[in-house]
Amino acid sequence: MQIRVYYEDTDAGGIVYHSNYLNFCERARSEFFFQKGMLPVIEDRHFVVRKISCDFIKSAKFGDTIDVSTKLIEMKKASFSILHEIKKEDMLLFKSEVILVLVKDGKPQKLTPSIQNTLHSLFS
Amino acid sequence: MQIRVYYEDTDAGGIVYHSNYLNFCERARSEFFFQKGMLPVIEDRHFVVRKISCDFIKSAKFGDTIDVSTKLIEMKKASFSILHEIKKEDMLLFKSEVILVLVKDGKPQKLTPSIQNTLHSLFS
Amino acid sequence: MQIRVYYEDTDAGGIVYHSNYLNFCERARSEFFFQKGMLPVIEDRHFVVRKISCDFIKSAKFGDTIDVSTKLIEMKKASFSILHEIKKEDMLLFKSEVILVLVKDGKPQKLTPSIQNTLHSLFS
Amino acid sequence: MQIRVYYEDTDAGGIVYHSNYLNFCERARSEFFFQKGMLPVIEDRHFVVRKISCDFIKSAKFGDTIDVSTKLIEMKKASFSILHEIKKEDMLLFKSEVILVLVKDGKPQKLTPSIQNTLHSLFS
Repeated sequence: MQIRVYYEDTDAGGIVYHSNYLNFCERARSEFFFQKGMLPVIEDRHFVVRKISCDFIKSAKFGDTIDVSTKLIEMKKASFSILHEIKKEDMLLFKSEVILVLVKDGKPQKLTPSIQNTLHSLFS
Repeated sequence: MQIRVYYEDTDAGGIVYHSNYLNFCERARSEFFFQKGMLPVIEDRHFVVRKISCDFIKSAKFGDTIDVSTKLIEMKKASFSILHEIKKEDMLLFKSEVILVLVKDGKPQKLTPSIQNTLHSLFS
Repeated sequence: MQIRVYYEDTDAGGIVYHSNYLNFCERARSEFFFQKGMLPVIEDRHFVVRKISCDFIKSAKFGDTIDVSTKLIEMKKASFSILHEIKKEDMLLFKSEVILVLVKDGKPQKLTPSIQNTLHSLFS
Repeated sequence: MQIRVYYEDTDAGGIVYHSNYLNFCERARSEFFFQKGMLPVIEDRHFVVRKISCDFIKSAKFGDTIDVSTKLIEMKKASFSILHEIKKEDMLLFKSEVILVLVKDGKPQKLTPSIQNTLHSLFS
C-alpha cells in the first residue's frame, strides 16, 4: 500500500510525527478488508491492538511516497501478530510488530479455526 | 480555556497545522460540559457542526500557551452560533464562528425553550 | 482526488471528525503540486490559509471512499480562492471556500503575473 | 500530567484511537521541559524516538480524565529510556517504554555527562 505524506502527517521537526507511522500501518490493515468489499469486522467481532513494538529507523518527510507492507507472522488461540515494514523506495524507515485480538462486547474472543482461515486468506 | 501546543499540533511549516485550531475550539466547547459533570449531550441529542467560518490571523507555534474563548452569539429555532477567539497573551491568532445543530438519530432537532435555556446557562 | 476514510479520521460519533474534512482538502491542494513533481512552494514562497468558510452537509463514515474536487475561483493581487467539494458518489457531503496567501519569511507576498500564471495552470 | 479525552482523540469504535496514547506520552515528556521554561532541546540537540514498545490494557473513552506518568529508567551512552503509564483513577490503561536519542543535524549524539545530568534532573 502506497501512502503520500501530507502536511498533516508532519510536525515542527520537519518530518513525520512518530505516532503517525502507526496510523499508516492501521490504514494498511484496514485496506486489506476494504479491497475485498468488507469492513474490518469478522463475525461481529472487531480488532483491537493489544501490543505494539516498533523501530523508527529513518524519517519520512513532507511529499514522500512510502510503501507499507503487511504480513501475518503468528496465529495463536486468542491473538495474532502482524509485521509491518514502511519503506521509501528500498530504504527501510520503520518496522513494527502488532499483536491484535478480536473483541466482542469489549471481551477478547477465541480465534476459531474458521476465523483463523479468514485471517490467513486475508493477509496472504 | 488554556491549551498548550505540542509537537502533534504542528506541521513541517513549524507552526500549528491550520485545522487544529478547529480542534482547540471543539475542546473548549466540550469542556463547558465536562466542567459541569456532563457529556456534551442534551436530552439524548448531540451536537453537530453545520457551518464554520474562520480567520487565521497569526500562527501559534510549538510550546505556546494559547487561550480559547467561547461565546454564544445567536440562538435560532434549529441552530445556535458560537464565536471562538484564540489568543496568545493579548494577540489575536484565530477567530471562528461556528453554527451547531442538535441531532438525534441523524436528524436535526428543534431547540425547545428548555434546551435553549440549558445552552444559555452553559455558555455564559 | 479519491480518499478512503480510515479509523483515524473518525470520532466516537461514528463519523468523520469535522476538522478532518479540511485536512482532506489540503491533501487535494498539495497533490496538484506532487502530481507535477513539485512541492507546494512557488519561487521560495509557501502557502498559508487566511480564511475558510465551510458547510458540513452530510457525514462520511469509516470505510467510505470520497472525492475531493479543487477549483480556483478567484485571483487577487495578494490572495486567491479555492472552492472544494467533497462528494460520496453523487452526494455532496462538504463544501468549502479557502482563501490562501503566499508567504515568504512570514510575510504575505504580492502575486506577480508569473505566479498567477503558475497558479492558473496548476489548478485547471 | 492530567489529560482530558476529547472527540478528536476517539475513533468510530467509541474509544481513544490507539496511536493517540503515544501522543499523550509525548505531551507528558514535552511538558517536563515547558514547566522549567525550556523547549525540549538540549544544547542544540533535539529528541527523536528510536524504539517504542507498548501494551494497550484497557481503553479510555470520550470525556475521561487520564493521568500520564513519566519515569527515566535507563541511561546509556547514546540513548535513554522512559517508562510511561497511563491510568484512569487507579486503573492501568496503557504502558509504554520509549527509547530516545538526541539528534543534531540528523545524527545521533553522545550523551555527555553534562547532558545525562540535565536529563536526570529533568525527569526526577
